Amino acid sequence: MITINFEEQKNSGLCESIYNSIKEQIIQGKLKSMEKLPSKRALAQNLGVSVITVQNAYAQLISEGYIYSIEKKGFFVTDLPLLNRNRFFATLTSASANENLTSSHHDFSNENQHLTSQNDSLNPQDSSASYEAVRSKNTWFADFKNNSISYEKFPFSLWSHTMRQILNSGDEKLLQRSQAKGVPELRAALSRYLQDFRNMNVNPEQIVIGAGTENLYAIIVQLLGREKIYAVENPGYHKAEAVFRLNGVKTVPVNLDREGISITELENSAAQVLHFSPSHHFPTGIVMPVRRRQEILSWAVSEPDSGPLSEMSRSSGSFLAHANPSDNSTKGRFILEDDYDSEFRFNGKPLPTLQSADTNDRVIYINTFSKTLAPSFRISYMVLPPSLVPVFEQKIGFYSCPVSSFEQYTLAGFIEQGHFEKHIIRMKNYYRNLRNNLVGAIQNSTLSKITKIQEKEAGLHFLLQVESDSPRNKLIENLEKYGINLPPLSEYYYGTAPEDIEKTFVVNYSGIKRENIAETVRRLEAALL
Amino acid sequence: MITINFEEQKNSGLCESIYNSIKEQIIQGKLKSMEKLPSKRALAQNLGVSVITVQNAYAQLISEGYIYSIEKKGFFVTDLPLLNRNRFFATLTSASANENLTSSHHDFSNENQHLTSQNDSLNPQDSSASYEAVRSKNTWFADFKNNSISYEKFPFSLWSHTMRQILNSGDEKLLQRSQAKGVPELRAALSRYLQDFRNMNVNPEQIVIGAGTENLYAIIVQLLGREKIYAVENPGYHKAEAVFRLNGVKTVPVNLDREGISITELENSAAQVLHFSPSHHFPTGIVMPVRRRQEILSWAVSEPDSGPLSEMSRSSGSFLAHANPSDNSTKGRFILEDDYDSEFRFNGKPLPTLQSADTNDRVIYINTFSKTLAPSFRISYMVLPPSLVPVFEQKIGFYSCPVSSFEQYTLAGFIEQGHFEKHIIRMKNYYRNLRNNLVGAIQNSTLSKITKIQEKEAGLHFLLQVESDSPRNKLIENLEKYGINLPPLSEYYYGTAPEDIEKTFVVNYSGIKRENIAETVRRLEAALL
Repeated sequence: MITINFEEQKNSGLCESIYNSIKEQIIQGKLKSMEKLPSKRALAQNLGVSVITVQNAYAQLISEGYIYSIEKKGFFVTDLPLLNRNRFFATLTSASANENLTSSHHDFSNENQHLTSQNDSLNPQDSSASYEAVRSKNTWFADFKNNSISYEKFPFSLWSHTMRQILNSGDEKLLQRSQAKGVPELRAALSRYLQDFRNMNVNPEQIVIGAGTENLYAIIVQLLGREKIYAVENPGYHKAEAVFRLNGVKTVPVNLDREGISITELENSAAQVLHFSPSHHFPTGIVMPVRRRQEILSWAVSEPDSGPLSEMSRSSGSFLAHANPSDNSTKGRFILEDDYDSEFRFNGKPLPTLQSADTNDRVIYINTFSKTLAPSFRISYMVLPPSLVPVFEQKIGFYSCPVSSFEQYTLAGFIEQGHFEKHIIRMKNYYRNLRNNLVGAIQNSTLSKITKIQEKEAGLHFLLQVESDSPRNKLIENLEKYGINLPPLSEYYYGTAPEDIEKTFVVNYSGIKRENIAETVRRLEAALL
Repeated sequence: MITINFEEQKNSGLCESIYNSIKEQIIQGKLKSMEKLPSKRALAQNLGVSVITVQNAYAQLISEGYIYSIEKKGFFVTDLPLLNRNRFFATLTSASANENLTSSHHDFSNENQHLTSQNDSLNPQDSSASYEAVRSKNTWFADFKNNSISYEKFPFSLWSHTMRQILNSGDEKLLQRSQAKGVPELRAALSRYLQDFRNMNVNPEQIVIGAGTENLYAIIVQLLGREKIYAVENPGYHKAEAVFRLNGVKTVPVNLDREGISITELENSAAQVLHFSPSHHFPTGIVMPVRRRQEILSWAVSEPDSGPLSEMSRSSGSFLAHANPSDNSTKGRFILEDDYDSEFRFNGKPLPTLQSADTNDRVIYINTFSKTLAPSFRISYMVLPPSLVPVFEQKIGFYSCPVSSFEQYTLAGFIEQGHFEKHIIRMKNYYRNLRNNLVGAIQNSTLSKITKIQEKEAGLHFLLQVESDSPRNKLIENLEKYGINLPPLSEYYYGTAPEDIEKTFVVNYSGIKRENIAETVRRLEAALL
């Protein structure tokens, strides 16, 4: 809602008064980012001024970058990261009653500055800091890096309804800690879902609920032992590598070829555990062909673990005599199959999971609700091979499941009542249209001359290869200037990235608003051409 | 609700028909554990039979253990762990569409058996298995070990109302992943709560939200580094020790004296981190006096870390030059102050926290909502010393907070609107009455001759010292026979427990129903006398 203060009218023209009022309301956050302004005609009528007066005020606001126009759509408030960030911290500090007491010797307001400077650090341990630094720029006009979904895309009323059903059920289970694997109802619902959607035969007892995949990675390290070496894909999802490393295991990046992770490099890496996403590699989008999948499965059984534990067992018969027999189940190699966005493959069915083809209890399947519901849901799950189930119970069984029982039962109900499946179908259509619109807008723009789109068949991201004489850093600088967060593919490499992908970018489009596509493409043109 | 099948009437007497119907409904779970049956008179009237017929049926059911009577209260369905367990697994397996496919070669129904046998294992690594084994006996008449709260004690409608407010707010933040420390609103609410309740001056930026204390322990290990040795209290909360150990650090139990953890033993332990509960030790109930607290704080600053990292720094100037300056913040000794039940101290104010007295950035304060709301809430928090805040951001900042944003915002609203404080006051009264009733019932029974109650002033547990000629194992066997889960204090010791506490038990009474106290004391008499 817009209110115009006519007090100032006496000292300045009508036009300036309108301009000042709107600008002030944007700065104060009363007009929100991306909020649509009234049409020139409507505002003029409302204020009893001429259309040309409003038009001049809007023109001035556009030229100063406070608002922008979209043809045939109207005028919108610009997303202003810096303004928003200041507001964010203002809220934070004013919220704290104790601010003055503690901030006297500890300056928290410099936190972001500190973090950004971490990016330049020479210490290799600091690589994880870059996530925070990037994320702290929390408002972009178009963010192609961080996942988020629009408010109207989440089925709030259905979720709220299911939650109330659960809360009103009068069941004391709601207040009890749930066993380490999670509540049986959710595991049973997931077992049926995996059967229907992924054609996987999974006993609910094999399923473990976790608070996000980060939490599951930590549990896997505790389950398989800390002495194994973990292979991660290069390029790949750096966060997984960082979590494994923070949990005290050695990690080793293994290069991809055109079919995904290279078997030769994997064999040479000395790794005993492989984390990867065969159904849709992030960020290259490679779908691993069947032959390579079989080779990976063979890798997992081809050589026993040569870690300290098994060496100990070999050299000492007496150790084995006292060891728990189930310790054997964690010996050897393992595959962590991260199936993070298989729900959003648009053409044809996804390839069967490795988990389904695994007859040797080598595959741990992992999936999450971050993409299918929202990143704010911290619910993930893994499917253990049957022989690891008793090991889990023995080692990890004393934990409580880290997801609240309310949410576990609500999600179980949400799946059982068919809401989840319908939501997936709806979101799949939404994302397909979003992708088609974005790809279409790029292809119909001048970008078509200097860009090539790769791997756009599956999932929520694709690659954009840019031909340009400008150096990459200049392109990135331009993109940032236009409020576009478009990460270069090279950012996902460990060590030096190959030269031929220097100007390839990762387009993770799920968080883009459809109404912003035209303006986004205009900004891309301005930044890249 | 009871329905009686009169079809069988022709072949058997009325009494047997009533007996069979009720028994069948108990076995099928249609009549639930602890459910109250209609009075003899009411049922007789309802069925059109004589009171004596119903009385005979009830008498038979009592003699077979299906129901029990409480004087002046009526008849109740017995809690039958084995029956319930079978039902539990029946649900699980029938819920799985794939049961036959996977269970053909993996027999999950033997899981419990497997776990119980783990208790006899010689491998010291298996100690954690005992938790699962005990917990799998999930229905006791009176469970003095596991925390739980009655359904009617949780403010469901207020919670549900706050949740709906949040879901209806239309804020896109609800769908975004929250930063590693948790959402600012909840941290601000907790900062104010700690000020009001615990007189602690804490900047919201120091607060980290976790998914239960288990999750925070894991984060602390990642924050402080895996090379430190962690001291835990002996006797103490074994779960903390098990979590630290599973996260790859060395743990060392340190003995208590009458004032809590022994400084001499702590000094001799080589530990650099101490986990303890000075406000109310679990399970002895010791409240650490001020002088000892000061000694603990002095211990934390008295000697620098002699771990590998600092040795490296000392021997090599060039390492320091490249190291991040904030690495210094994790050097030296640390205190993890676990304030798990300070809200339920009944007499007087709790002693100030160590966190408040810490001027050297050595104390990490930890608390949880498991006791104040319900164990099914997986929300905990810790307060970092200011110098660890940037270290956290740098090392851990790339994580997502493992608690769902819905619940974080709901809890923030619940606290801000004053519901939480009122709930604490209500629960404190409830627990005070519960404790007084239980203690009174014990003192007014024949137990008074053979038992002594220790440390009953604070918190949700006290000790019961039993004088008996029977060996301890015989007492425990009797207690189990009567459906009482009453853990011996010795269970909380690492290694051999002192002889004088051999027959002392830990009475963790928060999950006991008030209406069951009379019957519980009767069963305690029967088991212990």
